[in-house]
Amino acid sequence: MQRGLTLIPADEARRILSETPAVGTERVPLREAGGRVLGAALRAPEDVPAERRAVMDGYAVRAADVRAASELASLALVGAVPMGEIFAGAVAAGEAVAISTGGFLPAGADAVVMVEHTSSTGESEGGGRSVEIGRAVASGANVIQAGEDYAAGDDVLPAGRRLRPQDLAALATFGVAEVTVFRRPRVAVLSTGNELCEPGATPRPGQVRDANQYALGAQVEAAGGVAIYGGIVRDDAGALREVVARALAEHDALILSGGSSVGTKDVAAEAMLGLPAPGVLFHGIDIRPGKPTLFARAGGKPVVGMPGFPTSSLIVFDAFIRPMLWRLGGEVGRHTWAARRRARLARAQPSVVGREDYVRVRLVTRAGDPELWAEPLSGGSAAISNVVRADGLVRVAADEAGVAAGAPVDVFLY
Amino acid sequence: MQRGLTLIPADEARRILSETPAVGTERVPLREAGGRVLGAALRAPEDVPAERRAVMDGYAVRAADVRAASELASLALVGAVPMGEIFAGAVAAGEAVAISTGGFLPAGADAVVMVEHTSSTGESEGGGRSVEIGRAVASGANVIQAGEDYAAGDDVLPAGRRLRPQDLAALATFGVAEVTVFRRPRVAVLSTGNELCEPGATPRPGQVRDANQYALGAQVEAAGGVAIYGGIVRDDAGALREVVARALAEHDALILSGGSSVGTKDVAAEAMLGLPAPGVLFHGIDIRPGKPTLFARAGGKPVVGMPGFPTSSLIVFDAFIRPMLWRLGGEVGRHTWAARRRARLARAQPSVVGREDYVRVRLVTRAGDPELWAEPLSGGSAAISNVVRADGLVRVAADEAGVAAGAPVDVFLY
Repeated sequence: MQRGLTLIPADEARRILSETPAVGTERVPLREAGGRVLGAALRAPEDVPAERRAVMDGYAVRAADVRAASELASLALVGAVPMGEIFAGAVAAGEAVAISTGGFLPAGADAVVMVEHTSSTGESEGGGRSVEIGRAVASGANVIQAGEDYAAGDDVLPAGRRLRPQDLAALATFGVAEVTVFRRPRVAVLSTGNELCEPGATPRPGQVRDANQYALGAQVEAAGGVAIYGGIVRDDAGALREVVARALAEHDALILSGGSSVGTKDVAAEAMLGLPAPGVLFHGIDIRPGKPTLFARAGGKPVVGMPGFPTSSLIVFDAFIRPMLWRLGGEVGRHTWAARRRARLARAQPSVVGREDYVRVRLVTRAGDPELWAEPLSGGSAAISNVVRADGLVRVAADEAGVAAGAPVDVFLY
Repeated sequence: MQRGLTLIPADEARRILSETPAVGTERVPLREAGGRVLGAALRAPEDVPAERRAVMDGYAVRAADVRAASELASLALVGAVPMGEIFAGAVAAGEAVAISTGGFLPAGADAVVMVEHTSSTGESEGGGRSVEIGRAVASGANVIQAGEDYAAGDDVLPAGRRLRPQDLAALATFGVAEVTVFRRPRVAVLSTGNELCEPGATPRPGQVRDANQYALGAQVEAAGGVAIYGGIVRDDAGALREVVARALAEHDALILSGGSSVGTKDVAAEAMLGLPAPGVLFHGIDIRPGKPTLFARAGGKPVVGMPGFPTSSLIVFDAFIRPMLWRLGGEVGRHTWAARRRARLARAQPSVVGREDYVRVRLVTRAGDPELWAEPLSGGSAAISNVVRADGLVRVAADEAGVAAGAPVDVFLY
């Protein structure tokens, strides 16, 4: 175990992180609401459709007139429903009105005969135009009834839902041109470490380029937040405390990369000890990789100390910090790993009971074998190539001593 | 079959759509490259790491000095590696140098003893400080070798990859501060139909609010494009032809909602017939829902006529148009339905051989039953509630006559 860390179980870390309070809401135009989190539940303010509509091109009729059409029925064609308007008259017995898909059903009619089941109109007996109906229809055929899609008062969308394209269709349908959504959480991201230089620089001997800040920024944005890049802070407790205080004053959350190891040079964990209450909630999770992860709350704002190895940082973010940011952004009910594939583990993965492991895997198929295989990638946390090559992660749960070769596993997809 | 449509098989539609040429590239700062599509492959320009580095806090030693440490070995502590710099001297036989995780290994040393396996330093025989080593290490222990993560010349990222957070870490590591990515395709979206009004308006009798344009815009953005909202165009062939020509002059692609039915009022399909070569490539796919989908290419730019029902439009976009936009945006090798769950179909779904069906389903569990069930949602294409309530889609392939109740299915997740 790393010196000075008190590890808590992964489930306990998840419980603490899930208690993160949400930011406030704002109103945005419908066009900008895609992917945002709905701030207030939507109940149907009215019936949809408002009136009966045709769902096929054809003729609005009284079903009784054509119900027994074992032979062709001839109806007097008395007009057409103009799109975007309602038919001025009504359909009487023996009459039909032409209608297009989406048209509002005229009074008197109760069904639509598809145009494919009619024949071209000619002169009726009285000298007007007529339509020949080749198939019987029941009342309600090819019609969507008023309120059939949604009845006034129906639950449409719950608060806390991340809005999908179809949800925008529902909002538009109900006339919600401006949507109440949670603000996108503004998350400051910064790196600590005297050994770091910017990606654009040529490292001096002993230096490496800062990779974590850019990966974390992209992860924050993909989780629905706005990343505020704070740059590289040197290992100086005073400077760091100042940067942390300023970030927390201006933003909703702070993620510090490399600030959670208990190495000789580390001052980040120290700077965290001075945070406002409740302060540090845990420092160390019984997981691999990512053990030294730190989490604090300062005046309601989350502060995360990420492990310094890029691979550990990437995995801890996805497994623990991303769901926390979803909560911060108001989202509820989302599964951390919705996107997954079932596969067989290609190589045994030993673990220890109590510790939760995340194994980087590549999905492969083998010639003449219908199974999908999850191939663990070699290379420790100090290497990034394994996570760049990975298709996803396999979790070895805390109550498992490992996973045998060939065992079925869920692969959490990147 | 709808009048005037010649249906092509779904596979044939996919083949035609997959031939969409990609837009050009541009250079963006690393911070903005997350989720963008890489325009040029990255090969490692140098070894990573550049030099051997410690992957643990501890002491850099010569493994030969401690290999047989059945009892404590005492080494002279001759200094510490300063983070971000290299150790000025070298480690000679019998010597150790303190080192932090990430530190560059000093000359002469070939392994790191973890700090947990040492005891506090005291005076050595010669009067200097010393460190007691409690465990033998092999050469290379707790060290990542130069080039172990990536060797110069290694393939790192292929062109056409949508950049994930870990890919940004790789780009940063190799000093790519500006990234060549494909432009985000600019996709004009507009709705046609005299029956439509804006979401912010109160529909007159016979009108409904335009929902598709907002759903399509959100789908375009989620597919990596930039949505340009063109508003509602009335059913007037001349006006529509003008709008289409202008959109194609200014943008990379055009999606027309409601412009693909062959109903009496439809002029959109007509306007498409006047497009520059190769023009209309298909009008009608043997699928349900979404049969009347139209696809054209005008001077290399894709033009799509979407079915007018919101549910059909949503599903056709995800199944056919989204992969086409990925191609337009330069992305290659992505599976249309990567995110899926295995479940059992709760109710039989009849289909006909030759036609590909998409069934909206909700994922449910039942008390005392470990299985996940996919429950088909009722309501036709004219209703949006089923797709708003859905967790995903089940595809009934063209060569299947249906799927039996209880059969295992892949659910393509929203």
